[in-house]
Amino acid sequence: MSAVEMGRLIGVGTGPGDPELLTVKAVRALGEADVVAYFAKAGRNGNGRAVVEGLLKPGLVELPLYYPVTTEIDKDDCAYKSQITDFYNASAEAVAAHLIAGRTVAVLSEGDPLFYGSYMHLHVRLAGRFPVEVIPGITAMSGCWSLAGLPLVQGDDVLSVLPGTMGEGELQRRLADTEAAVIMKVGRNLPKIRRALAAAGRLDAAVYVERGTMKDSAMIPLGEKPDDAAPYFSLVLVPGWTDRPREDRR
Amino acid sequence: MSAVEMGRLIGVGTGPGDPELLTVKAVRALGEADVVAYFAKAGRNGNGRAVVEGLLKPGLVELPLYYPVTTEIDKDDCAYKSQITDFYNASAEAVAAHLIAGRTVAVLSEGDPLFYGSYMHLHVRLAGRFPVEVIPGITAMSGCWSLAGLPLVQGDDVLSVLPGTMGEGELQRRLADTEAAVIMKVGRNLPKIRRALAAAGRLDAAVYVERGTMKDSAMIPLGEKPDDAAPYFSLVLVPGWTDRPREDRR
Repeated sequence: MSAVEMGRLIGVGTGPGDPELLTVKAVRALGEADVVAYFAKAGRNGNGRAVVEGLLKPGLVELPLYYPVTTEIDKDDCAYKSQITDFYNASAEAVAAHLIAGRTVAVLSEGDPLFYGSYMHLHVRLAGRFPVEVIPGITAMSGCWSLAGLPLVQGDDVLSVLPGTMGEGELQRRLADTEAAVIMKVGRNLPKIRRALAAAGRLDAAVYVERGTMKDSAMIPLGEKPDDAAPYFSLVLVPGWTDRPREDRR
Repeated sequence: MSAVEMGRLIGVGTGPGDPELLTVKAVRALGEADVVAYFAKAGRNGNGRAVVEGLLKPGLVELPLYYPVTTEIDKDDCAYKSQITDFYNASAEAVAAHLIAGRTVAVLSEGDPLFYGSYMHLHVRLAGRFPVEVIPGITAMSGCWSLAGLPLVQGDDVLSVLPGTMGEGELQRRLADTEAAVIMKVGRNLPKIRRALAAAGRLDAAVYVERGTMKDSAMIPLGEKPDDAAPYFSLVLVPGWTDRPREDRR
């Protein structure tokens, strides 16, 4: 009896939502995978899965990894942390079982796998045990500034990527200390983000972008946005390159 | 006599060097373009042009935009600034002539067009006058951390993208004030970057990456790199997510 050769784990960046923004390499990897795994809320397929519809080979095994129901527990609660750690451990073992059986497992990761991606929770648990490849993806922020046609950083600009969850004073300090910024996790943090931008003198330049490269995307200068309604995955972009040529600036 | 319809300007991100890391959308746009324009050093084709070899349609017009010879002038010199501004203006007009004639012009941009890309100099001069589309690309930094299999940022991490050209004290201050960092424009700044990382207590985590996703790429923990030789386009990555699971950490 010959030993089965180990399968390969592939973290596949599925980009910001437009199926055409997958890389050629990602499309090839998905077409060759034996198993496709992805994180999703219970009862849903997840955005990453929708984007790759039509790219998977017939007979492929799907391995959805459903997050435990956690809305009733506070995220800083020990019970939540323990539950989510157990979930990531169990998910890694479910993937490992396929790898041990010699199957190539592609893990879908919206945006770029190692840039705030859920794939990372599998990567750190499996990369030491199995052959691993990571295929980068277009990040949501890059999809957004491209759609907006907004030159983000040039030359010696500093770029700060900031979570909208941080404290208002801290956010203001960092916004005043950078040429360009991307503020993520906007959602209900928008009123605070608006105040921090104003206090840092950056509100006039800020652009609000909703649902990046989806079909129903929307963008507007933040100063002109009449309300504070914002989905969690909306972004605020603050462009740098302030000495760029002005004559044709939009 | 009917008026000629204006051509479209397309900024095409060509990614970090591996032709398979172009997006499906970029490949399609390149196959449809009438003209392909790209910045390059005199006498060279540029990395962006090499990556798209084989993707262009027969009979397509090539428009190389050769930088003026400037090595003998200091970059902060007024003569340099004037010369390079004249060059970007003339380049924009050369592209505009094709657009006015109704031709679709794809401008190659290594990495992502609006993220430190040379395409931006054309974009700000032409976006107000012509229909424009920007196709995002995989950034060099994303190509590097994917190749290294290095989880960069997770959860509420702050990411700072810093040019290696900044002063040592400033670099140290910013490295001590962020969860994760990408240091660009390394080259002869490497000794200074090493000192700033050490002073900020981040040298042990730093990874040096040379020629991202090229065939001759190299990476090494910066603390183990025996010399200070580094090409200009090498990167130093400082990963965040310091509380990630340790048991399988490589």
